[in-house]
Amino acid sequence: MSILIKDVQVEGDVTHIYIEGNRITEIGKKREADTVIDGRGKLALPGFVNLHTHAAMTLFRGWADDLDLSTWLETKIWPAEAKLRPEDVLWGTKLACLEMIKTGTTTFNDMYFHMDQAAKAVKEMGLRAFLSEGIVDLNDPERAAKQLRAAEDANRRIEALKTERITPGFGPHAIYTVSKDSLLRIRELADKKGSLIHLHLSETKREVDDCVVETGLRPAKYLDSIGFLGKDVIAAHGCWLDPAEIEVLAHTGAKVAHCPISNMKLATGAAMPYPAMKEAAVSMGLGTDGAASNNSLDMFETMKAAALLQKFASGDPKALPAIEAFELANLGGARALGIDAGIIGVDRLADLILVDPRRPELTPRHSDLSNWVYAAHGNVVDTTICDGVVLMRGRRIKGEAEIIEQAGAVARDLVTRE
Amino acid sequence: MSILIKDVQVEGDVTHIYIEGNRITEIGKKREADTVIDGRGKLALPGFVNLHTHAAMTLFRGWADDLDLSTWLETKIWPAEAKLRPEDVLWGTKLACLEMIKTGTTTFNDMYFHMDQAAKAVKEMGLRAFLSEGIVDLNDPERAAKQLRAAEDANRRIEALKTERITPGFGPHAIYTVSKDSLLRIRELADKKGSLIHLHLSETKREVDDCVVETGLRPAKYLDSIGFLGKDVIAAHGCWLDPAEIEVLAHTGAKVAHCPISNMKLATGAAMPYPAMKEAAVSMGLGTDGAASNNSLDMFETMKAAALLQKFASGDPKALPAIEAFELANLGGARALGIDAGIIGVDRLADLILVDPRRPELTPRHSDLSNWVYAAHGNVVDTTICDGVVLMRGRRIKGEAEIIEQAGAVARDLVTRE
Repeated sequence: MSILIKDVQVEGDVTHIYIEGNRITEIGKKREADTVIDGRGKLALPGFVNLHTHAAMTLFRGWADDLDLSTWLETKIWPAEAKLRPEDVLWGTKLACLEMIKTGTTTFNDMYFHMDQAAKAVKEMGLRAFLSEGIVDLNDPERAAKQLRAAEDANRRIEALKTERITPGFGPHAIYTVSKDSLLRIRELADKKGSLIHLHLSETKREVDDCVVETGLRPAKYLDSIGFLGKDVIAAHGCWLDPAEIEVLAHTGAKVAHCPISNMKLATGAAMPYPAMKEAAVSMGLGTDGAASNNSLDMFETMKAAALLQKFASGDPKALPAIEAFELANLGGARALGIDAGIIGVDRLADLILVDPRRPELTPRHSDLSNWVYAAHGNVVDTTICDGVVLMRGRRIKGEAEIIEQAGAVARDLVTRE
Repeated sequence: MSILIKDVQVEGDVTHIYIEGNRITEIGKKREADTVIDGRGKLALPGFVNLHTHAAMTLFRGWADDLDLSTWLETKIWPAEAKLRPEDVLWGTKLACLEMIKTGTTTFNDMYFHMDQAAKAVKEMGLRAFLSEGIVDLNDPERAAKQLRAAEDANRRIEALKTERITPGFGPHAIYTVSKDSLLRIRELADKKGSLIHLHLSETKREVDDCVVETGLRPAKYLDSIGFLGKDVIAAHGCWLDPAEIEVLAHTGAKVAHCPISNMKLATGAAMPYPAMKEAAVSMGLGTDGAASNNSLDMFETMKAAALLQKFASGDPKALPAIEAFELANLGGARALGIDAGIIGVDRLADLILVDPRRPELTPRHSDLSNWVYAAHGNVVDTTICDGVVLMRGRRIKGEAEIIEQAGAVARDLVTRE
């Protein structure tokens, strides 16, 4: 199957993009194609990479806001999650995919439960995803064994879907919910399988303080001391990283997903030290976090929030300028996940979006880049293409109304379930 | 002229809203009307009140980002503004109105130049606005006299438009750009005319420090010491207000417009002390500030940013919950400006919007209120009504393409003008 996007603007030039299979194979020449998309007046941008989310948590959107983190987790989210059924995750993930397609995200890095169901949803919806079954053992060896088995089972079932778009990984929740033994076992499994590891790291001060009390080390140093860190680790948040931890992350090649909206909403108390991490050349991307702590999966909004938070927290309006926010949101995430996307180029994956700039909020066009980061929302996306397949055109997605209805019903049922 | 919005949801109940002239005259009974709007499946919300903006600065959107405040003002904005022509303000304000109508704002409080042209734009676009000609005398008595005359002239021309929707006021830029004599003269004029006064207050630490050096007092205390503060003062920003200043604002009845996005983008270094101001019962609303320092006029986004910034800055995720952000954005602003809007009720001004919640990002509907504040953007607005006139229906506004084209051309010309 081939797609020609004709007369579309790519980095300032009007040209033609030719897609064959799941790759961009030519930029410049018009060619015959199975599908022809008229790109006149539109711009092509790389699809966004959401480097940290819990997709099915769309089901909890708006259900527990304005609470402190422990009340939020302990009295609302965890009790509700204890009642979570596979079918919930299927519909919650479909809803998340719908929202992501409509706001220009083509790849996401997900950690949640019943991930074989998430995979089913992603396969159907057409996005690219890295899916990790969440592992929480609370230092209980029996629970650990069960959770690790469940994770390996989920990963086998995901692999059985035989979709290149979907890659299973391992999702140890965090150092305060997963024992050292389990972390080491996950490191072994990841090495054996060549999988990514997705965890939360240094989100709250309490996590740091507790880790120092228990191990004498700050979280990233602790993980390094047990040989856990590596290029295959995607750590979400990193709000409280200190210079020595940043050094360790840079040295080991571990990646960090900055989640500015979740960090502000839950008042984690510190912003990820982006300027120092950039200086140390830590590999970074942007994440929305789950819809329960954001409550949106719109990466346009997250780019702006990242720039705003970094400027405010550093006291420097020059911090995290538009170009860097934009690159974190696509190329940064793509590099972190090791995929050939995040940029529009020949031989790259055909993960891209078309945006129509003829809108009041994108006028004038002194700088399109500034407009994407500071003025646009996800609704500027007209067309979303992932893996060489058109998922949305003219903002229409097949099955949208059914997903909204079903996911809404599942969500109501979930939070009232006895 | 009358409008019936039938079968629409208002605060949870499906009902009918009847508008006669510029007021809501009945809620509940279906009546014959000149225009009937089918509200099935939609919700009616009060239109937003943007309590601080510089509408025509849409012309500078994306032209000078990621700079520190003094570089931004001194090397970019002020030199460009020196070349500003009346026609620029006309088109820049039309563009701003277009964006505001599309994102659900029905009233805005504006300070800029050539405000008779802004008024012309507002009259044509149908919004409600408070317009103040910006006064900057830089302690030069000659300049002061000229600026005050220009402001009075602009106000006379605005009054000559004879539109109840548009109210002229006085716009002394800030204490560091306007002399004490001018401030006192403006106080006299405002008393005589019964006008509002719109100024910037306590935006940066430098403003506070300089004021303390020059007067021995912090900015709000200084203004109070010269008898300037009163119920008719709308002060934008208030980032650096201290407890004694908050007390003075509460006591004098002066209003404050919180502008979270601008404050973060320009890294003012402190967040407006909302919790203490709420405790002291200071009257507050939300503003976007101008599109050069935001770069969006979307009040949905500003509600979320206000909640996020307050949570982050206070370290308390319970700070500025959704209901308070929502009320600041409509009722708070309406009260500050002394208009009968910001709430949907009988005898209130017919300034309201219809929103369609059947969208992925607004699913599920555990809390519509949470969805408006944390998940929605301005594009959820389907219909905008101001002063009893339908300004947008089905997201279509007459003349949109022409405004985008003309404002874009004017903006390009303005920044390249010799």
